[in-house]
Amino acid sequence: MTLRLLLAAVAAFALPLPALAQVAPSDPATLRDAALKDDIAWDIVEGLTTEVGQRLAATDAEARAREWAVTKLKALGFQNVHIETFRMPVWVRGEERAEIVSPFPQKLVIAALGNSGSTGPKGVEAEIVYFPTLADLEAAPDSAVKGKIVFISHAMMPTQDGSSYGPFGQARRKGPAIAAQKGAVAVLIRSVGTDHHRNPHTGGTNWPKGVTPIAAAALPLPDAEQLERVLRRGKPVRMRLLITPQFKGEGESGNVIAEVPGSDPSAGIVLIGGHLDSWDLGTGAIDDGTGVAITAAAAKRIMDSGQPRRTIRVVWFGAEEPGGFGGEAYAKAHAGERHVAAAESDFGADRVWKFDVNLPDSAKAIGDRLTAALAPLGIARGRELAGDGTDVGPMMKLGVAAIDLAQDGTRYFDLHHTPDDTLDKIDLVQLRQNVAAWTAMLATVANAPEEIGPVTPRPGL
Amino acid sequence: MTLRLLLAAVAAFALPLPALAQVAPSDPATLRDAALKDDIAWDIVEGLTTEVGQRLAATDAEARAREWAVTKLKALGFQNVHIETFRMPVWVRGEERAEIVSPFPQKLVIAALGNSGSTGPKGVEAEIVYFPTLADLEAAPDSAVKGKIVFISHAMMPTQDGSSYGPFGQARRKGPAIAAQKGAVAVLIRSVGTDHHRNPHTGGTNWPKGVTPIAAAALPLPDAEQLERVLRRGKPVRMRLLITPQFKGEGESGNVIAEVPGSDPSAGIVLIGGHLDSWDLGTGAIDDGTGVAITAAAAKRIMDSGQPRRTIRVVWFGAEEPGGFGGEAYAKAHAGERHVAAAESDFGADRVWKFDVNLPDSAKAIGDRLTAALAPLGIARGRELAGDGTDVGPMMKLGVAAIDLAQDGTRYFDLHHTPDDTLDKIDLVQLRQNVAAWTAMLATVANAPEEIGPVTPRPGL
Repeated sequence: MTLRLLLAAVAAFALPLPALAQVAPSDPATLRDAALKDDIAWDIVEGLTTEVGQRLAATDAEARAREWAVTKLKALGFQNVHIETFRMPVWVRGEERAEIVSPFPQKLVIAALGNSGSTGPKGVEAEIVYFPTLADLEAAPDSAVKGKIVFISHAMMPTQDGSSYGPFGQARRKGPAIAAQKGAVAVLIRSVGTDHHRNPHTGGTNWPKGVTPIAAAALPLPDAEQLERVLRRGKPVRMRLLITPQFKGEGESGNVIAEVPGSDPSAGIVLIGGHLDSWDLGTGAIDDGTGVAITAAAAKRIMDSGQPRRTIRVVWFGAEEPGGFGGEAYAKAHAGERHVAAAESDFGADRVWKFDVNLPDSAKAIGDRLTAALAPLGIARGRELAGDGTDVGPMMKLGVAAIDLAQDGTRYFDLHHTPDDTLDKIDLVQLRQNVAAWTAMLATVANAPEEIGPVTPRPGL
Repeated sequence: MTLRLLLAAVAAFALPLPALAQVAPSDPATLRDAALKDDIAWDIVEGLTTEVGQRLAATDAEARAREWAVTKLKALGFQNVHIETFRMPVWVRGEERAEIVSPFPQKLVIAALGNSGSTGPKGVEAEIVYFPTLADLEAAPDSAVKGKIVFISHAMMPTQDGSSYGPFGQARRKGPAIAAQKGAVAVLIRSVGTDHHRNPHTGGTNWPKGVTPIAAAALPLPDAEQLERVLRRGKPVRMRLLITPQFKGEGESGNVIAEVPGSDPSAGIVLIGGHLDSWDLGTGAIDDGTGVAITAAAAKRIMDSGQPRRTIRVVWFGAEEPGGFGGEAYAKAHAGERHVAAAESDFGADRVWKFDVNLPDSAKAIGDRLTAALAPLGIARGRELAGDGTDVGPMMKLGVAAIDLAQDGTRYFDLHHTPDDTLDKIDLVQLRQNVAAWTAMLATVANAPEEIGPVTPRPGL
């Protein structure tokens, strides 16, 4: 029995490890505490956002990011570093301008939503029809919408767990298609965000089969509130919009894969990662430069402490933003390999505040050891079944055990999908806490002596 | 002796007025405390920023603002409401785009400085030459600058009294002309600001006679820091800029004037106000919608409490931003009238935290009564000689007594001259404190029984 296995067995009996006890340099607590001084994650996200910048899916910039990633991951000492490409539809931003024509002429700031249609180069001018919520648009007769510019608002609040994004995000995901089906010429939404800067929040919108895309853009909160104030004056409000993005057919994206090979190939793969692509307005620092940085930094720290039992596979997924293309491509290519656990970092870089698992009964002790390993970082075990992650979701759906390290989302939607998603928003102390949490998690899971069999996926995954 | 004069006389003996004592409804303390529930100022700034929006000097938007102002000031019951026009050079923004061409291609956000020259419609491409401070540019030989795009940085910090704006603002005011004289093709500056949003800070730059304007723009702090990181990689950095503002010859701006006539015309005029124009990126909420709102609201509250001894003249100045044209035009037209005191509100809407005066010895007691009237709002008397204000400065220069109600500037340069200068940034509680301070000041000064003779202006005014 190696020292590592001995320690794991001790931990399995749920004996707390005194902070000052003599422990091996590769035990979770020691690795965790050393990671609180991590510089690897900062170095990755600083390099990626500076030397590549924005990385819109299936563009030259994303391809440059993959080359950058291969160089960096090889330099860090990972094995089997390679790119796996896939094809996907390409969408790129064009010009975007918005102005109130009457009653109070003024410009507003907008950003086209991902997959927005175009107004054409001449733009459109029409009256605004205002819906305080998506439900109000859904309830409206076609006659109220036809020929108009739809404006959908909402009242999203910050939440620590990010749970407000699901319901309020529907205005962006579904609203434009509903407006198009009712005959709108274009659609504006109040940004799905919680800040009050002149930063529009882009993000993907969906067009069901048979619905022709119309121009769809987000107003920053100050602009959405300005438009609401103008509308409250009770006069008809006319706007002119120029929104000219383009669908450019099929293009190439790809996943970047790197490994820390395990000593026991039969024990299965632990799959971790984040996404390499970003929206095009910021530099993709917290979405998701930090996700790829945190996961790779933690894996590197495990690698440097000695060979783990299980292979840790780090994937920097391509094309998550426009619809999770990288995660689907990965699952398609790798479903036949034995994956035993998966986890994703894609919610910024503020502190991990809780964790959840979906582990088989045979591996219940791993959850208990995680509770002990993460508690010193202030991370409590949650009451939910794990299963988060657009990119690792397709593997979880196949029954791979799940671990969610939940990041504090209180300020995430101040920055998410905006021009403000830049390096300066990252808090180094909190970034390091993330690396420490991931390091402790990997040290625990990748080295666990227990068999980790398949699980029933979280419902709805 | 009227009750007001009696009270003023009592106050002149520096007897503190107990908070619960029986006092007239028009005494400074009662008016001050009622103003803490003021809605007039909010109503003005909400209306101006919503129904007009940005108000760039000598444009149609500024003209609409003057019409709006006349309607509003008349509705509030002011007397002698009228516009006094003047001519000035007109500058308007064009297109603006910036990108790093090599070594790491990416777009940056910029905004042209006021009075920037143009790159022409084809733009310019050149290597960046970096100067950490304006002094470094000044010290550089022409050969280091010729044919290049100059990038000037600095390290401004927030200050409560706004004093960092003077020295660090020189990069914007003087930097472009120095770069032009040394042969630069264009100039970028780190925004003169303290926030980390993708909001460039515009603001006027100056071209001495004989210097041909070149294109000059500000980078938001995240973009300036990004460019610095790219430069630190040590490779030559090439950028492409398209900056196409236009000088449009002479145009019309104007001041809007309104009065609360005093009962004693021989006692002189108390001149107050802010500026009606704004830069074009935001809606001019805190610069200077709140200044015109606060001063007019306070004057209105005095008017409604009974006729003051002195005429209070409220001026909403035009064209302050491009160079104080409204203040100069006012002084030229009105220097012959007897002004006895002047004060300006042009530093946002956060709390007044101190006040300073420049009063003649004969009116020393007024300063003491102001100390008593403002202390309950947390406002202490400062140790400086008053004399702030671009718009009332030309009158102060002629020897008019000065009162500075200094606003807290800690977050002012997060917003100043940016797209983020919008209504949502105004804190209603702090706005009301401003109105209360101005109301107490006006009740004290406009009704003071003392003669207020001329003063020696603050040195350097």
